Amino acid sequence: MSDPGISIAVVDAKTPGNVGTIARAMKNFGLSDLYLVDPPELDPDGDAYGFAGQARTDLLPNAKTVSFDYLVENFHTVGTTATTNSDHRRHVRYPYKTPDELRDSLASVATETVVIFGRERVGLHNEELARLDEICSIPASDSYPVLNLGQAATVICYALSPLSIESTQQPDQIVRAPEADIEGLYAEFDRLLGQLGETDDRDRLMRLWRRLLGRAHPTKREVSSLRGVVRRSADRVEPPSRE
Amino acid sequence: MSDPGISIAVVDAKTPGNVGTIARAMKNFGLSDLYLVDPPELDPDGDAYGFAGQARTDLLPNAKTVSFDYLVENFHTVGTTATTNSDHRRHVRYPYKTPDELRDSLASVATETVVIFGRERVGLHNEELARLDEICSIPASDSYPVLNLGQAATVICYALSPLSIESTQQPDQIVRAPEADIEGLYAEFDRLLGQLGETDDRDRLMRLWRRLLGRAHPTKREVSSLRGVVRRSADRVEPPSRE
Repeated sequence: MSDPGISIAVVDAKTPGNVGTIARAMKNFGLSDLYLVDPPELDPDGDAYGFAGQARTDLLPNAKTVSFDYLVENFHTVGTTATTNSDHRRHVRYPYKTPDELRDSLASVATETVVIFGRERVGLHNEELARLDEICSIPASDSYPVLNLGQAATVICYALSPLSIESTQQPDQIVRAPEADIEGLYAEFDRLLGQLGETDDRDRLMRLWRRLLGRAHPTKREVSSLRGVVRRSADRVEPPSRE
Repeated sequence: MSDPGISIAVVDAKTPGNVGTIARAMKNFGLSDLYLVDPPELDPDGDAYGFAGQARTDLLPNAKTVSFDYLVENFHTVGTTATTNSDHRRHVRYPYKTPDELRDSLASVATETVVIFGRERVGLHNEELARLDEICSIPASDSYPVLNLGQAATVICYALSPLSIESTQQPDQIVRAPEADIEGLYAEFDRLLGQLGETDDRDRLMRLWRRLLGRAHPTKREVSSLRGVVRRSADRVEPPSRE
């Protein structure tokens, strides 16, 4: 889709490199609108532009500096936090959505959404989170759940990317070969077993071969290549002598 | 689970900061075994340790420097690449799995797997990929599909984390209030509408209220709090005069 309606905002970041990392992740995952609240100075020769990759030419220089109020007043707001409340009686950081849950819920709503990231170390303050509509938190190891700011934004841009990427760099996934081709390969393999003199074990080996290839979803090209190998093998194996 | 059987390897990284970023992502997402092939020098006062967060105390100093051959000989190997083949007749970078597909396939296999990341800019060479068992590629925007090394590893550690994280920092998700409590809230709301003199629109408003709360999955605490507000409102609204 051309306009996913998802923007990213960063509040009071201290490290220009993190802003650049976020810009790059956005461009990698099909997002384009970046809002900065109280940003650090972004020197064109510094880390922000250095870490932004190709986002240095468009997304990063086009980032808009705005107020926190502007975000609250103009968007459906999603605050991000590593620290959720463990107590459902407190609502500042609870209930939260995981990134996947956020993606699924946004898929069915027409809205302009901004996902907001807080400052390094302390994230968004409670007073800020209290003004936002929803909370999103990345499930991570309870022994070390705090992601780096740029890495957290990368994960969330990735998780939301099915909403924002119209076409990826990837070609079509595996197309399983026509079943007739696969059966033809099985037949050649069975013939090879016959040529090899297998009798008692032939059925078991056929099942094993069928299971192995079956779950690999072989492509037409794979099947025809393998079929050639098996056929040539069967042709060239001497049949067992009948002594 | 305590031993997910998933390790991470980085081949010929040039930038110590990327190694640190990868170490942090691993610790955030419950992985612990990092292998380095031809690593850059990792100065304890440099970027690798600076970017590693809490992984600087254990995961990063415990990283093992090994050969590429060691990985091939000791693991089920998964190579990562941003550039997949667009032509299924070439097998070096095809077929590939997405990170989610890799997670799902590894969930049902008992094996020691290593996910291998290549050098900055050029990634893994074709000769290296040809020696690996599987290919994993992150779907990204076709206009800019190349992620930074550290960000790519972060995304894949996140995608695999359901296999590696036993417990997250997050408390249980929303527990929907008992239906009887929710019905009680609806009854109070209906009483309030009565007190407000609603007649023609009362059914429609009730349906609207039920739909709105229904899809929000209110918690017990939310329901009881709202119920109190609605009850107090109904109690204090003067009934319509019968003039």
